[in-house]
Amino acid sequence: MLDQIHLLAAVTVLGVLEQAYFVLQVIYARRVFGISPPKISGPPEFERIFRAQVNCSEYFPIFLALLWQAGLFFHQGLAAALGLLYLYARYCYFIGYRASSSKRLAPMYFGTGILWILVAASALGILHFFLSHYVGLNVLQLLAA
Amino acid sequence: MLDQIHLLAAVTVLGVLEQAYFVLQVIYARRVFGISPPKISGPPEFERIFRAQVNCSEYFPIFLALLWQAGLFFHQGLAAALGLLYLYARYCYFIGYRASSSKRLAPMYFGTGILWILVAASALGILHFFLSHYVGLNVLQLLAA
Amino acid sequence: MLDQIHLLAAVTVLGVLEQAYFVLQVIYARRVFGISPPKISGPPEFERIFRAQVNCSEYFPIFLALLWQAGLFFHQGLAAALGLLYLYARYCYFIGYRASSSKRLAPMYFGTGILWILVAASALGILHFFLSHYVGLNVLQLLAA
Repeated sequence: MLDQIHLLAAVTVLGVLEQAYFVLQVIYARRVFGISPPKISGPPEFERIFRAQVNCSEYFPIFLALLWQAGLFFHQGLAAALGLLYLYARYCYFIGYRASSSKRLAPMYFGTGILWILVAASALGILHFFLSHYVGLNVLQLLAA
Repeated sequence: MLDQIHLLAAVTVLGVLEQAYFVLQVIYARRVFGISPPKISGPPEFERIFRAQVNCSEYFPIFLALLWQAGLFFHQGLAAALGLLYLYARYCYFIGYRASSSKRLAPMYFGTGILWILVAASALGILHFFLSHYVGLNVLQLLAA
Repeated sequence: MLDQIHLLAAVTVLGVLEQAYFVLQVIYARRVFGISPPKISGPPEFERIFRAQVNCSEYFPIFLALLWQAGLFFHQGLAAALGLLYLYARYCYFIGYRASSSKRLAPMYFGTGILWILVAASALGILHFFLSHYVGLNVLQLLAA
């Protein structure tokens, strides 16, 4: 079983390490700007770093859910590759947002695009499974014939 | 293996699409009320939409965790059906909260009720597995005898 | 398959129950301090409880991701035991943060330490799988020889 998920597991752990990096950046920014918990408001420079981390956290479960469905039902290698691209897009998003609100946009669109590809891969893979499981229709075999 | 999880996977992807819809509503509300990131405060109309999305995001990992445990250890079809009901409850919650704070309550209680049923199904399923795995006690066979 | 994940599933459901407890504490605090949704700011006593819950929610998907990778690729029993310790650390964190911002620190460091152990276990387990799967190198057998 593990050989069907080891690439997904590796990308998942990398994703956790990226989240840890973002959290450390917020802790560091709290020190620099002197904003102690539970406060979450401050100068825009701090709020951008804080919101960048919150946004990445919010998308993390969505990303993992899609990564694993696409990997299990479509193709593990492709899902893992898209996962790595997404983590790279999130890194660019965080660095961009820290610099200015507008610089978060390009990597945000890029990351969202990857998520939609993962949605499509998951949906196609699950649909293919439904068709062959319930209707006995194997689309791939039909296309190959 | 996939035939034991394909319904859970389908509900998971539907759940992601619902989260995407909520995020788009916040982006749209930011434009309507002229509130650019990283700002998250504004008129109550905006804050309700924003908080509705944050609340749905916060519960999403909890929902997925319960959906999958209930589906794997209790019954996949039942878990998936409850999952669809939960996604419907969350849609009503979002629409209700956008209209007024009090209109979020009824669908919130409904959704929470479904989560508790998923907790019960997960706990019973896992308990049943523990009893048959460690104690050699198969409760279902005892009840049938 | 279920015997390889039943301990992880049990810890996952326990974790969900803990999150439910935290959410109930916030609902209770909203009543005590008279702060109705969508408002999230108020006296420090309220904001600490609110932020404690948000922080626990934010880490929940990260915790689950690590628990399951460590359990699947390293050792299920060890991962589940570390998971229980983490849930205990989170409980202490919540109680501590409610009392004062500084009292959240010790359990926060403890919980973070456990997460890093889960990261290490996951990474080692996945690395071991990669080496034996792709290179044909079984490190454990080499060490035993």
